[in-house]
Amino acid sequence: MGDVIREETKRRGLEPTAKNTGEVMKLLRQQKGESAVAELCLETIARAGAQRVVVDGIRSMAEVEAFRNRARLLLVAVDASPERRFELLKDRGRSDDPLTHDMFVERDRRELDVGIGKAIALADETISNQHGTPGKLAADILKIVERWDADERA
Amino acid sequence: MGDVIREETKRRGLEPTAKNTGEVMKLLRQQKGESAVAELCLETIARAGAQRVVVDGIRSMAEVEAFRNRARLLLVAVDASPERRFELLKDRGRSDDPLTHDMFVERDRRELDVGIGKAIALADETISNQHGTPGKLAADILKIVERWDADERA
Repeated sequence: MGDVIREETKRRGLEPTAKNTGEVMKLLRQQKGESAVAELCLETIARAGAQRVVVDGIRSMAEVEAFRNRARLLLVAVDASPERRFELLKDRGRSDDPLTHDMFVERDRRELDVGIGKAIALADETISNQHGTPGKLAADILKIVERWDADERA
Repeated sequence: MGDVIREETKRRGLEPTAKNTGEVMKLLRQQKGESAVAELCLETIARAGAQRVVVDGIRSMAEVEAFRNRARLLLVAVDASPERRFELLKDRGRSDDPLTHDMFVERDRRELDVGIGKAIALADETISNQHGTPGKLAADILKIVERWDADERA
């Protein structure tokens, strides 16, 4: 979902910094409603013609509902403590990742205001990313998807 | 934390049903602020004179802050899907547990409004209770507490 916001930010002639993508996310929501970013993703997915899709970066129940209206959805929350998430974001260093702890706290506040906490609380599955490695996380997710597959077939 | 609310409900001469405890929780917050239930728990804990305490039932960051002001705190989120939580509550059958799915959805809405999603999103540790048994959950929690102990000593 971040890709879609970064694309939209560039389309508007802005650098995809944390500040600009944050502003564009807010503007999109004001102009097209709370599920605006999900709707943009759904267009991209439709163009790709894919049958199974992993969407990363859901921030609110409005977005969850937008996806649920179009597909069977398994909502997975991947959570870690604020400290750990700040470390992971620093290591990642993407153009719109927060550079300072203040920017990180501000980003968290913005995402909590949008309603990310409700989406986490109401997830179908929860995975802790507090102590794991990328390999452990991938294994956890694969297990969940395989279980979901088996349930859907049953 | 539910014990404290059930006690307070009885103290006010009411049966501790889901409806009454919900009302008392709301009244307590209106009268004594968002951390009212945490403050009542802190009184109980002080009377018990315990050095190490497990508190179950945190619903908001205001409550988290109340505990953090008085002790070192490890905030652990135990999450499961709404369907699974409804099943677990039906099996538990406590006086103030929801009897119907509508009551359950209403309870979830009330707790999300108080801010439980933020507390889950900002937890230090997250455990999934989606597929486990009580024994698995106990083992997960023990592991987390032992790791915390080791970190505190380091």
